[in-house]
Amino acid sequence: MSLLHEPADPAVPRSPLDRAFRPRSVAILGASDDPTRISGRALHYLLRAGFSGGIFPVNNKRDTVQGITAYRNLADVPGTPDVALIALPSRLLAAALRECVAKGVAAAVIYAAGFAETGESGAGLQDELVEIARAGGLRLFGPNCLGLMNSASGFVGTFSSAFDAGTPKGGGVAIASQSGAYGGHLAYLCRERGLDVGYWVSTGNESDVDVATCIDWLARQDEVTVIMAYLEGATDGDRLRAALATARAHRKPVVITKVGKSAAGAVAAASHTASLAGADGVYDAVFAEFGAYRARTTQELVDIAYACDRGVFPRGRRLGIVTVSGGFGVELCDAAERYGLDVAGLPEAARARLRELNPMGSDDNPCDTTANWLNDPSLITKTFQIMYGGGDYDSVIGSFTILPDSPTFGAGIRDAIRAGTEGYLDRPTALCMQARPDVVRAYEEAGFLVFGDSDRAAHALAALARIAESFAASPHEALDPGTPTEANLSGLSEADAQEVLAEVGVPFLPSRLVHDRESADAAAREFAVALAAKIVSPDLAHKTDVGGVELDVTDAAAAFDSITTRVAAARPDARIDGVLLTPMAPSGVELIVGTSTDAVFGPVTMVGLGGVAAELHRDVVLRVGAVTVEAAREMVLGLRSAALLTGHRGAPAADLDALARLISTVSRFAVANRDRVASVELNPVLACPDRTLALDALIITHSQKGTTWISD
Amino acid sequence: MSLLHEPADPAVPRSPLDRAFRPRSVAILGASDDPTRISGRALHYLLRAGFSGGIFPVNNKRDTVQGITAYRNLADVPGTPDVALIALPSRLLAAALRECVAKGVAAAVIYAAGFAETGESGAGLQDELVEIARAGGLRLFGPNCLGLMNSASGFVGTFSSAFDAGTPKGGGVAIASQSGAYGGHLAYLCRERGLDVGYWVSTGNESDVDVATCIDWLARQDEVTVIMAYLEGATDGDRLRAALATARAHRKPVVITKVGKSAAGAVAAASHTASLAGADGVYDAVFAEFGAYRARTTQELVDIAYACDRGVFPRGRRLGIVTVSGGFGVELCDAAERYGLDVAGLPEAARARLRELNPMGSDDNPCDTTANWLNDPSLITKTFQIMYGGGDYDSVIGSFTILPDSPTFGAGIRDAIRAGTEGYLDRPTALCMQARPDVVRAYEEAGFLVFGDSDRAAHALAALARIAESFAASPHEALDPGTPTEANLSGLSEADAQEVLAEVGVPFLPSRLVHDRESADAAAREFAVALAAKIVSPDLAHKTDVGGVELDVTDAAAAFDSITTRVAAARPDARIDGVLLTPMAPSGVELIVGTSTDAVFGPVTMVGLGGVAAELHRDVVLRVGAVTVEAAREMVLGLRSAALLTGHRGAPAADLDALARLISTVSRFAVANRDRVASVELNPVLACPDRTLALDALIITHSQKGTTWISD
Repeated sequence: MSLLHEPADPAVPRSPLDRAFRPRSVAILGASDDPTRISGRALHYLLRAGFSGGIFPVNNKRDTVQGITAYRNLADVPGTPDVALIALPSRLLAAALRECVAKGVAAAVIYAAGFAETGESGAGLQDELVEIARAGGLRLFGPNCLGLMNSASGFVGTFSSAFDAGTPKGGGVAIASQSGAYGGHLAYLCRERGLDVGYWVSTGNESDVDVATCIDWLARQDEVTVIMAYLEGATDGDRLRAALATARAHRKPVVITKVGKSAAGAVAAASHTASLAGADGVYDAVFAEFGAYRARTTQELVDIAYACDRGVFPRGRRLGIVTVSGGFGVELCDAAERYGLDVAGLPEAARARLRELNPMGSDDNPCDTTANWLNDPSLITKTFQIMYGGGDYDSVIGSFTILPDSPTFGAGIRDAIRAGTEGYLDRPTALCMQARPDVVRAYEEAGFLVFGDSDRAAHALAALARIAESFAASPHEALDPGTPTEANLSGLSEADAQEVLAEVGVPFLPSRLVHDRESADAAAREFAVALAAKIVSPDLAHKTDVGGVELDVTDAAAAFDSITTRVAAARPDARIDGVLLTPMAPSGVELIVGTSTDAVFGPVTMVGLGGVAAELHRDVVLRVGAVTVEAAREMVLGLRSAALLTGHRGAPAADLDALARLISTVSRFAVANRDRVASVELNPVLACPDRTLALDALIITHSQKGTTWISD
Repeated sequence: MSLLHEPADPAVPRSPLDRAFRPRSVAILGASDDPTRISGRALHYLLRAGFSGGIFPVNNKRDTVQGITAYRNLADVPGTPDVALIALPSRLLAAALRECVAKGVAAAVIYAAGFAETGESGAGLQDELVEIARAGGLRLFGPNCLGLMNSASGFVGTFSSAFDAGTPKGGGVAIASQSGAYGGHLAYLCRERGLDVGYWVSTGNESDVDVATCIDWLARQDEVTVIMAYLEGATDGDRLRAALATARAHRKPVVITKVGKSAAGAVAAASHTASLAGADGVYDAVFAEFGAYRARTTQELVDIAYACDRGVFPRGRRLGIVTVSGGFGVELCDAAERYGLDVAGLPEAARARLRELNPMGSDDNPCDTTANWLNDPSLITKTFQIMYGGGDYDSVIGSFTILPDSPTFGAGIRDAIRAGTEGYLDRPTALCMQARPDVVRAYEEAGFLVFGDSDRAAHALAALARIAESFAASPHEALDPGTPTEANLSGLSEADAQEVLAEVGVPFLPSRLVHDRESADAAAREFAVALAAKIVSPDLAHKTDVGGVELDVTDAAAAFDSITTRVAAARPDARIDGVLLTPMAPSGVELIVGTSTDAVFGPVTMVGLGGVAAELHRDVVLRVGAVTVEAAREMVLGLRSAALLTGHRGAPAADLDALARLISTVSRFAVANRDRVASVELNPVLACPDRTLALDALIITHSQKGTTWISD
């Protein structure tokens, strides 16, 4: 494969990021003659890697640095360097950036720490640098970052010790990490795993270029096979979502570790980098929306990137299993179920062929060949042929335990599997095996994914299936949230909130606000059914606690009296707007639908099962932004308890269209009015067989105290 | 450590299993001269390992085998071999076993396959062998097994290719695996991980000796540090429970993989070995009861055995974290939360010491030392001293990424941590690091657990904490289930079932069975509250479906008429015993309590949250056998939704003692009557603040069709 590091058409102008990731020349400000020092490391790496462009050390005290010509000032450097690597202390940075701007440099990389990550005065210093760069059209990496690398061109613009052992040969794996140390760790793990890293970038404090910016650029490069990302928190939610959309459009898998899920972790993340983290559950929602794969552990991140790098994705989730001992087949069945792969049975014709081939082995999926193949390796070949040809599985895992490591059998097993998978190389074949690294490499070169553990193999294939599903899904269209309401939204009572939301299309029960026992009685006659009666007051968010609610009311006048008396006794300070009468609700499944405002991603819509048990199980689904009806339906079906809505055990199914429309409507309202609305809560929402109804509504504006519903 | 392979006192008589695991002499029946053949492999291994006892090949055609004297018959072998390894085809086995019995051999190992695992005729052959052995007092390993090994004495009585590369040196790790291939795979993984395997046994078809028998024996050996077990299904539930109790009493950690959790896996397991598998959730309950750690994956099995082998367990769950870059601290916080470790903050005095020591680093837990220690490794030493001395953490994880692999820093970091943990070697210190195997070994020799991944380190420390908790817990006393009831239990109506269970102490609402509208009316007057009315019939298990239930009844006579009319219309065939009237239930949390009969473990008691949503979440806790009140309370508190019972959000707490007594009572009833009772179901059970009440009861006998509640 030819690893391009220039666009095909030289007439196409290069963007600043093109110039940063594929520089034609590099200046190193503060370059040291000592290759072991941070200020000397990048120059050393560039020289060792044989960087294909110009290298211009700038050092105000020396004529040569590490054996090549040095310049006293950036201004003296011939031509226009695309990138300036700045290995200078903080106090010299502002001047250095001004020189970069004057020289027409596209991007400056700032290694120095001591900025926003240390507190307010550091943040002030950082803002100053950003201002200089922005005004001058200069892109910034860092500060507090370890730089970037493009291995195909030998551009190693980093001092990370991960590249001490050598420059990776060009490859399809791209790493974008907020933490430089973590990024270096990943580079090491990739090398151990035989994964070739083509691009590597650490973004540090993300004063300008962030991980999202890098994902967006990397996703557009033909040679990239997979993007591994590490995030502590996004600085710009919209940019991250747009970058993930770009990656999906270009069919580039993004495997991402977002740390800070735990409370202690979130605090630690905030002190490590200077980014504002959104609620962790919202990240899950964003990653799921665009098919980015969130890896829970570093091992998982590397495993799944490894599987993606091959570029072979399964068409579906049907998994064939071939083993040389039954116990591993059982273990693999369990793992397949854990990750949602389908160990479907073989058709009878294929089973008959297996019986004929190997009477002592099993004749179904999982297929245990037993040890009979020791006498005849073609038995392995034919078993794979039957699994793919007869079983038509989307992927196959072969479990060969420690046998590939055997000098006697190792190569023969490999060749036998290779022959059996001929014609099926468009489907992933994974092998579980233990062997020395050179044996593993030989198996990989024969076209197989190799894992040391059943669980990890099944997990990776399931991840490939999920990513393929996401590539195949048509992205939801952008949805116009509509125009903001002209209504006042501040300090709304429940009745007012219902009115505002009814206006935009949220269905409520009919209701009547009454102010005295006589009008209560009149309204009750009109409804002519049992009623619910609730106090209405801008000062009472929790009406039940003060005796403000009565149900199954038949004497509305009496209920009016008793409610108002109780509330007056409990909260004499509360302003009372009246009592709201509504028909008793029909039966249906109780849900909660709401919106909240995430610090990074803005309005987020939530649906969850109502009731106290569901809350303990945290069965909620979130989605950022204006939600289409179709996406809202996906949210509902994504609930673990979705079966309650789709006809569980003969119970009637809810009207999912009506429910999805309600969710979509609420989300559009929240987005259209995002400048004012902090949160909306409809609790409960009743999903009935013939309709969906909201029974209660609460709108909180940014100027009020936000409600807190748990998003993760 | 001296690795004993003889009991201290030679006067103590040796049990057959002592003789099997620590033979003084071994006969090999059918020994081949060819060391590559299955029948030649064990002899080859024994000779190569320098087995300390007598080796007696038996071969009816040769005078020598692999260079040593062979005997034509077992009878000709001098003395009494403790073990006979039998490498003969099936048809010669019966005669061979008779010879073993005649010779006084303690245990025979049968390698041959083709018995119970292949179907009925094979099972017949196997039964014949078992009969010969049992009658002659001979213990059997296999058939269809790979034998056993005791590496300290060089007794390698197996043909597993796992020992082709060499005999493990004696060590504390014991492996007991039903599958020989899986056991061999584990031995390979242990060698890779630097774990010394002292005992290894594969039990195959378990016609006599099973994994439980081996666990029991291994747990009694001083030199054993950890038992790794692999199960497809237990043959004898009581024996497995007794073995796990022995292991706990001897403070031997048991780390166990039980495959067959998935439906496909259960089918595959049944066809791989011949054991009858119990429901998977019941295994979880048994392992939890005795503190055996169930590993979900092979990697986890090896990781946790590795951690146990050191023998250093934490006193609690408070975890200190030291990193050289903040990102890893965040990752470790997330992992700690995932596995229930507590990343507690440091006391202020310790924080002040950290600030003084390293102003640029973090002054709390997790502690990011930043890269400052590069200039002064004593900073690492002092940081560990502060974490252990000032933070008093139960364990500490240090994350050093790829730095230990550095020729420049590697040894210095190791020595610095070693100095910092001096005085705290009774607490586990785990390091997350990437390095070459020899570097890892050097770190391990300095006293640290080494993991390549944050998640795996946190997982292993949490497992150590859980195992330590189980060692510390006092085992529940055995509970006398009481005498069987004299009542008839077959075909009981709900009212009859209630009466039987009320007799043994299960609290129900008072009720009256009425047979006509007049007696219904009279009963209602007596109760003088709103009633529930339900049809009583031995033919109607689901009464609601046929209109057989009315609630909030005030006119009992009318309810009697309408219920009997509806039921007669829906099920004219059903025998009707009358209508049961009970007061409407008080408010409380709805639970389901029941018992079921597991194929392997017998009566199992379950408690779960009632209601349809809880069922979807499968929030149930199981326990085998007669459950003490204290254990029943643990069951209830083990529910994910336990908060609903302990005063969630200001709701009143349920009377847990009453609930635990009810569970205990039902379990004792099921055990006492296990010969007749297949299952009991109390659904719902209402847990109220002042009492617990069962509202409904169902007893199913073995002769009836069993109810099916989902146990996993």
